[in-house]
Amino acid sequence: MSGYNVRTDLALEARESIEEADGEIRGISVEEEYREHSDVRITRVVIETKNGAKAMQKPMGTYITLEAPAMQEPDEDYHREIAEEISHILRQLIPDMEREKAILVVGLGNREVTADALGPGVVDNLFITRHIVREYGKAAYNRERMNLVSGIVPGVMAQTGMEAAEIIKGVVEETGPDVVIVIDALAARSTRRLNRTVQITNTGIQPGSGVGNHRNALTRESLGVPVIAIGVPTVVDAATIVNDAFEKIRKEKAENGMESFPDISFGSLNELNNMYVTCKDIDETIKRLSFMLSEALNMTFEMEEA
Amino acid sequence: MSGYNVRTDLALEARESIEEADGEIRGISVEEEYREHSDVRITRVVIETKNGAKAMQKPMGTYITLEAPAMQEPDEDYHREIAEEISHILRQLIPDMEREKAILVVGLGNREVTADALGPGVVDNLFITRHIVREYGKAAYNRERMNLVSGIVPGVMAQTGMEAAEIIKGVVEETGPDVVIVIDALAARSTRRLNRTVQITNTGIQPGSGVGNHRNALTRESLGVPVIAIGVPTVVDAATIVNDAFEKIRKEKAENGMESFPDISFGSLNELNNMYVTCKDIDETIKRLSFMLSEALNMTFEMEEA
Amino acid sequence: MSGYNVRTDLALEARESIEEADGEIRGISVEEEYREHSDVRITRVVIETKNGAKAMQKPMGTYITLEAPAMQEPDEDYHREIAEEISHILRQLIPDMEREKAILVVGLGNREVTADALGPGVVDNLFITRHIVREYGKAAYNRERMNLVSGIVPGVMAQTGMEAAEIIKGVVEETGPDVVIVIDALAARSTRRLNRTVQITNTGIQPGSGVGNHRNALTRESLGVPVIAIGVPTVVDAATIVNDAFEKIRKEKAENGMESFPDISFGSLNELNNMYVTCKDIDETIKRLSFMLSEALNMTFEMEEA
Amino acid sequence: MSGYNVRTDLALEARESIEEADGEIRGISVEEEYREHSDVRITRVVIETKNGAKAMQKPMGTYITLEAPAMQEPDEDYHREIAEEISHILRQLIPDMEREKAILVVGLGNREVTADALGPGVVDNLFITRHIVREYGKAAYNRERMNLVSGIVPGVMAQTGMEAAEIIKGVVEETGPDVVIVIDALAARSTRRLNRTVQITNTGIQPGSGVGNHRNALTRESLGVPVIAIGVPTVVDAATIVNDAFEKIRKEKAENGMESFPDISFGSLNELNNMYVTCKDIDETIKRLSFMLSEALNMTFEMEEA
Repeated sequence: MSGYNVRTDLALEARESIEEADGEIRGISVEEEYREHSDVRITRVVIETKNGAKAMQKPMGTYITLEAPAMQEPDEDYHREIAEEISHILRQLIPDMEREKAILVVGLGNREVTADALGPGVVDNLFITRHIVREYGKAAYNRERMNLVSGIVPGVMAQTGMEAAEIIKGVVEETGPDVVIVIDALAARSTRRLNRTVQITNTGIQPGSGVGNHRNALTRESLGVPVIAIGVPTVVDAATIVNDAFEKIRKEKAENGMESFPDISFGSLNELNNMYVTCKDIDETIKRLSFMLSEALNMTFEMEEA
Repeated sequence: MSGYNVRTDLALEARESIEEADGEIRGISVEEEYREHSDVRITRVVIETKNGAKAMQKPMGTYITLEAPAMQEPDEDYHREIAEEISHILRQLIPDMEREKAILVVGLGNREVTADALGPGVVDNLFITRHIVREYGKAAYNRERMNLVSGIVPGVMAQTGMEAAEIIKGVVEETGPDVVIVIDALAARSTRRLNRTVQITNTGIQPGSGVGNHRNALTRESLGVPVIAIGVPTVVDAATIVNDAFEKIRKEKAENGMESFPDISFGSLNELNNMYVTCKDIDETIKRLSFMLSEALNMTFEMEEA
Repeated sequence: MSGYNVRTDLALEARESIEEADGEIRGISVEEEYREHSDVRITRVVIETKNGAKAMQKPMGTYITLEAPAMQEPDEDYHREIAEEISHILRQLIPDMEREKAILVVGLGNREVTADALGPGVVDNLFITRHIVREYGKAAYNRERMNLVSGIVPGVMAQTGMEAAEIIKGVVEETGPDVVIVIDALAARSTRRLNRTVQITNTGIQPGSGVGNHRNALTRESLGVPVIAIGVPTVVDAATIVNDAFEKIRKEKAENGMESFPDISFGSLNELNNMYVTCKDIDETIKRLSFMLSEALNMTFEMEEA
Repeated sequence: MSGYNVRTDLALEARESIEEADGEIRGISVEEEYREHSDVRITRVVIETKNGAKAMQKPMGTYITLEAPAMQEPDEDYHREIAEEISHILRQLIPDMEREKAILVVGLGNREVTADALGPGVVDNLFITRHIVREYGKAAYNRERMNLVSGIVPGVMAQTGMEAAEIIKGVVEETGPDVVIVIDALAARSTRRLNRTVQITNTGIQPGSGVGNHRNALTRESLGVPVIAIGVPTVVDAATIVNDAFEKIRKEKAENGMESFPDISFGSLNELNNMYVTCKDIDETIKRLSFMLSEALNMTFEMEEA
């Protein structure tokens, strides 16, 4: 690393950075699995100790990452196979999922900025049931068992003057869900993972993450109930792009035996703060991914009859 | 009245209905004022007693109605004169307006249904300051005195599974504003007042009012702080339209000495439940009115230097 | 009929009106079919002669109406069965559908007015292929046969200053499609058919029809290629609602032997011009119906390998 | 330059690139003007000869660039002063502006991608008059002289399957405007000019420019009437960002007497194709700039009474 602290919301990338520098890491367990028929790679990173948390700059907990190149392509079935994999992971991370519960889904991000509109898009397509079950009972759905699903899009500070965390905390206290699921667009460290990676974690959301950087903590500590966070990297910080290019070239030079490639100070990249890199067809990408995620949630929340 | 209970969100119309039936009413005071240069009529209805409240089917409090035919017309300055009148009324109804305060503006209604999107539109154009003042101080605006303005669009139950009132209550408890201002699209009793009337009241919002009928109470009792409600009728219930037409014709017949016009049962109008009447250029109307109201709020919240 | 000329965009309703008045009609053939398993009723009205056209106030041609009560209900599969029926009808009406062709789909209506946004919504979800096939060939889809599908949302006059027909005519001349398919929200004569009826005709679109009334002709004569129109009634004219209620009550009175129910003049209903009636959950309805129609189009345009 | 061909839509930047390389350029005249009270710099580049055009890789014609740092800041009056400067420039470039004419405004770009939504936003706020004047005459505006203003948002190829140029060509042929004004979001060469620069040119739009790169020519040659293009750089190509950073660092090294900084091949930056850099508050920026430009157009089109 060249003195520039590369920000990433992905545990997978944080681990790679450390690995490059230090080799093995204590307090962090990693398992990988590859599903050939769907070309999906699932990596399970568990940060088990405080030391591991410090090394990763992320809180202790489980981070499951699903990488699926197909997510970048259009699909008339909105990648139902990947949605099923995501649903499978969610059922592992949401505590006690076989019992009926009240679930609040939070769509973080800014509806007006395409690359940041993933969370709002997911809530738009969610199958919302709480108000119906409360007013008419489960009979309204001809079911004996129903989860109560509610959803909210808190908006961003420039629109509301409030932290999303303030709004969510108030809503959680007032409506008392058993679990909160937070969806957000993330910033990745490299373009390689953009729009083809889903990270699901039981650690909630940490301050300063996400595309808009507009957030306080949304965690079990702050909300009082388990918080599952689902994130998809849709942007890369502009400064990161430059840094990545440098590293790449430095590596090439080193491999060719050129040692003289100079160190670079990144003070000059200040103008890139508050800028991010995204792809040109981000509108179709966000539409497709948010539909895929809402389908994954809908199938997770649907209950088998007992 | 023909046995059909005509619903109206306007105190002005409720009073007219009673007047027709009973003549004078105790416990209700009414003052009218007409501004010739702006062609604006302002009516101040105060419900002073419980009897008055019962007769009006509305809670005790002050209801100020502004009627301005110009509101129906396009105006490149978004009816600044009317916005100033509204701001003048708001300064009377918001308690202690000359002191700095924290103000939460709530945009009720459904952003996806044009006639119901007034509240969301107002919040979209609001000058939001709370997050800036809290992070950088009033110096960020070169001011010694600043109100802290926040805004929220809670959405409707079909989208969130929650009552708007639940969301607002949680947000009020968490962020502690000094006053809440609620904007909503209303249902009027007749097409005559559509899109040209603004009602401002210090009684907040009652259950079962509004275009979408999607609400619990938002009042000083339920929220713990003063609640000012601003409403503009943008729709008429479909059943009301039919009823109105009948009354009109009945009247004409009666004036022509025909007594035989039969009584009408409205059981057959059930199919009109959940239907409403609106005008064809409702998109431009809502755009214009929401801009006018957000300007009225922005000028109300801007503080003179002490 | 009480002297009030009830406007309808549905051939089905036009025929019912005439039938009530005159009994049988020459030059008009009608066939009905009922699909029990999907609860879909299909009525095929063919206006065969000029006299028939005059009686119906609609041009000669085929009008196929599909009535499906299920369309009013949510469905997680977006009513795929009904979409298949619609696709089946389209294949009958679009000339020479088994050959590859260039198809322009026009989404009429105002995206900003929920009840009028059906056409734009359909184009939003369409599988657009023309630009890909022209740039990369059919190989891009691994196909030997592909239709070239293009789509346009011309907007309404208040937004563009132009008739939709002017824009479409220009685009047709410039891009030369083999057939034009026009989607529009219609006005029905009664609430009974709202949001559950689809009319498909090979006569195109006539002046003065549709929700917004904002159109010149879009016909084979005006565009030079076959024009198929697909319409769904999403609103009822406000004056029609009143008229309907009157007719209903008049009928009840007559059946009860009361002859004295007076004639009514509708001059007093002028204030209802430019107003329409729609249902409160029109946002979900339009979302569902536009998705269903775009699916019907997508399956119609997909080609079997020869 | 390091062999990487930096793309820019701004004549100003093209000229700077050449200047760095070659010093003075024949066939290109440049005038600068600075308005101190509004902190606006206006640069007038005229490409007078074919050689100049070749050197600049831009067609012959006049390119006026307005740089105003204030454009990056919020302003409750939507930068009316700057809008007036833009209007002043437009009056110079639109031929024969003092005579009544028919003007078609084209909002290029993708409404669904925030950074590319400038053109659509401008058309949304335009004062459209053509349909009114044609139906009711100028009397509808109490005017003796009125321009006929129409507007269109053609969308992008992924949505329509058609080149914007095909749609515009058809509409121009059908409606016969005297002049076409095209608005588009541009790609700049450096972040320094982002969202604070307006380029106005009488050369129209060239293939391959703009954020989305989705266009054929829109020029006097292709449309048959004068075409004025108004562009604001809202993004920078991702590869450009990297290149810029390299150049900057190379320069610093050179100034410090380090000669060994190696040449860099940019083959490795392929993954940055189809990616762009934009700022985080792009939603507010686009809203503000599109309103400013529509105001500039509205004041340009409004006619003095003769």
